[in-house]
Amino acid sequence: MTIIHGLILEGRKDMAEFHSKIKTIEWVDNYSKMVDQTLLPYEFKYVHITKGQQMYDAIKAMIVRGAPAIGVAGAHGVVLYAQELREENLSRDEFVKKLLEKADYMATSRPTAVNLMWAVEKQKEVIKNSKSDISGIVEELKQNGIRLEDEDIAINKKIGDYGAEVVPKGATILTHCNAGGLATVGYGTALGVVRSAFAKDNTIQVFADETRPRQQGARITTFELTMDGIPTTLITDGMCSYFMKKGMIDMVCVGADRIAANGDAANKIGTYTVAIAAKYHNIPFYVAAPLSTIDTSISTGDEIVIEERSHEEVTHINGKIICAPDVNVINPGFDVTPNELITGIITEVGILRPDYKKSIAEAFKK
Amino acid sequence: MTIIHGLILEGRKDMAEFHSKIKTIEWVDNYSKMVDQTLLPYEFKYVHITKGQQMYDAIKAMIVRGAPAIGVAGAHGVVLYAQELREENLSRDEFVKKLLEKADYMATSRPTAVNLMWAVEKQKEVIKNSKSDISGIVEELKQNGIRLEDEDIAINKKIGDYGAEVVPKGATILTHCNAGGLATVGYGTALGVVRSAFAKDNTIQVFADETRPRQQGARITTFELTMDGIPTTLITDGMCSYFMKKGMIDMVCVGADRIAANGDAANKIGTYTVAIAAKYHNIPFYVAAPLSTIDTSISTGDEIVIEERSHEEVTHINGKIICAPDVNVINPGFDVTPNELITGIITEVGILRPDYKKSIAEAFKK
Repeated sequence: MTIIHGLILEGRKDMAEFHSKIKTIEWVDNYSKMVDQTLLPYEFKYVHITKGQQMYDAIKAMIVRGAPAIGVAGAHGVVLYAQELREENLSRDEFVKKLLEKADYMATSRPTAVNLMWAVEKQKEVIKNSKSDISGIVEELKQNGIRLEDEDIAINKKIGDYGAEVVPKGATILTHCNAGGLATVGYGTALGVVRSAFAKDNTIQVFADETRPRQQGARITTFELTMDGIPTTLITDGMCSYFMKKGMIDMVCVGADRIAANGDAANKIGTYTVAIAAKYHNIPFYVAAPLSTIDTSISTGDEIVIEERSHEEVTHINGKIICAPDVNVINPGFDVTPNELITGIITEVGILRPDYKKSIAEAFKK
Repeated sequence: MTIIHGLILEGRKDMAEFHSKIKTIEWVDNYSKMVDQTLLPYEFKYVHITKGQQMYDAIKAMIVRGAPAIGVAGAHGVVLYAQELREENLSRDEFVKKLLEKADYMATSRPTAVNLMWAVEKQKEVIKNSKSDISGIVEELKQNGIRLEDEDIAINKKIGDYGAEVVPKGATILTHCNAGGLATVGYGTALGVVRSAFAKDNTIQVFADETRPRQQGARITTFELTMDGIPTTLITDGMCSYFMKKGMIDMVCVGADRIAANGDAANKIGTYTVAIAAKYHNIPFYVAAPLSTIDTSISTGDEIVIEERSHEEVTHINGKIICAPDVNVINPGFDVTPNELITGIITEVGILRPDYKKSIAEAFKK
């Protein structure tokens, strides 16, 4: 039995409250504490991020990943930069100017998930609106970062509860990548729907796509769901249609990294393929995400920047090459599922339905 | 530079004729010599199979794989059993009875690819029709096995030439799994189409699906195509739709393990998902296979037995676990693409088109 930070990680009895006990990312004193997700499922370890540049690198290297979690990470990153600049004996104006530049830099650590830009923008508003001195600004940023953490969990529980209403009794839910407690501060978006549904009906179960190349489904989703005692079946990414045809999948629920004003949704590469397969089999396909994932400044998914990631993610697994050395590689990190394939977008203010242009605009008025 | 059996495997200049120099599986003296495909792309090694049971195990463990190649392997396996039984001082009747039993056993080494049953049946016909003594039967089986090898290559070249006619100039062809020279005795079915097309137009290129769980696309297709100097891009299985939407895929061409009388085609798990994505994007989807892959005894794909393979293929890569230990797994080795998603079936007698029930019946009359 492995015990880390008081948490039992093997011999997983009585672990149902695991996710109410931990936060994936949390501000502590003067640093950001986060689960190192590159080590899962082999090791459960916290890292302490104490510098702004460290946070930038942690987001880029996917030590912290998942759109809502990297939103909070970005907010924490701005606090870390503020702490560093506080030590430089700058004038208040110089401090504000430099900090806003650092905030903009932090927002570029990953290009697709809009929650990062959204959370950094929230911190920039704090900086711009503050009437305090430098130390006061740092304190306000810290408090705002902590507030975003708590808000994230509360929002996810609302998403979960709205989503649970559309989960059929005894359903098998297919998910892609990890939109779980480990992609957020806690509870999860798509897996928040699973958790809320499972709390009402413990006969539901999950099929988890492996999600190559980074295998977040295999590494992280199976880890967090089996920890919670939710029956989970791991499948490879190509298998979804086989199980859909057999009538073994009742709904699909995934997260999102950015949603356009018309409902087109960017999510982990492979999601679009699952959505097409769901449509072909008439299976409902839901996206679960907070309103902060919706970028109303872009009208369609065509405007979403798709991150191109390292070729080694495709050619190597666990450090070992899996192909001929002179093969070409293209490695888009995300794809865009067009609104016509999406049955509903589950948010903290309810489930948005087509026509999304209208329902999204209305959601932002609430 | 690695040189094995006179073949340069690294420093791949002047390798264009690689596949005309080797056979994936070949009868030599009194044993079957085959490329051990479980070692690719790390090692290029031949194994010598000298006993019937060894052949059964080699097919089951996928040391030899690919529907046409395991057909020939099954035929060789019957010769190996015949050689063993020849040493047992049996009467001719006892020899024939025991050998037919061993042949039936050989045909059960894998359940989905019909070429195995087809080739074993060819050997059973030799046994039943022979007028020779025991040594004569062994010799006839050996000659028939060798004939099947040569026939396979000749058939694949015809498939390649028919298929090349429907490859647009400068096309990018997406393929799944490996239906190449290493899935056959040589040249390949789907990759035979690629080879014939590339010989006419060296601006074509291939996108190869990784093909989890066994990664035949990454391990074997990238190996054999880059060896031939054909530009090849490795993608993960979930990415196909992304590239289709971007207009980067002009056609899909895959192999098959069994085709029903109505054209429904079983192939490596994940093929069906690619076919659905191709349909959604109006991209032609071709299946390339010899007539021996068509099982006219079954009317639809629903009758095709789908092999369930070891869970470790999903949960482990290169010997290392990639998921939580207590996750469930289902691992179907194949799926069935319904005829409505198939643009054409490329065979050695031409490209069959819908209505497949008619065109397949006509093909067998030729």
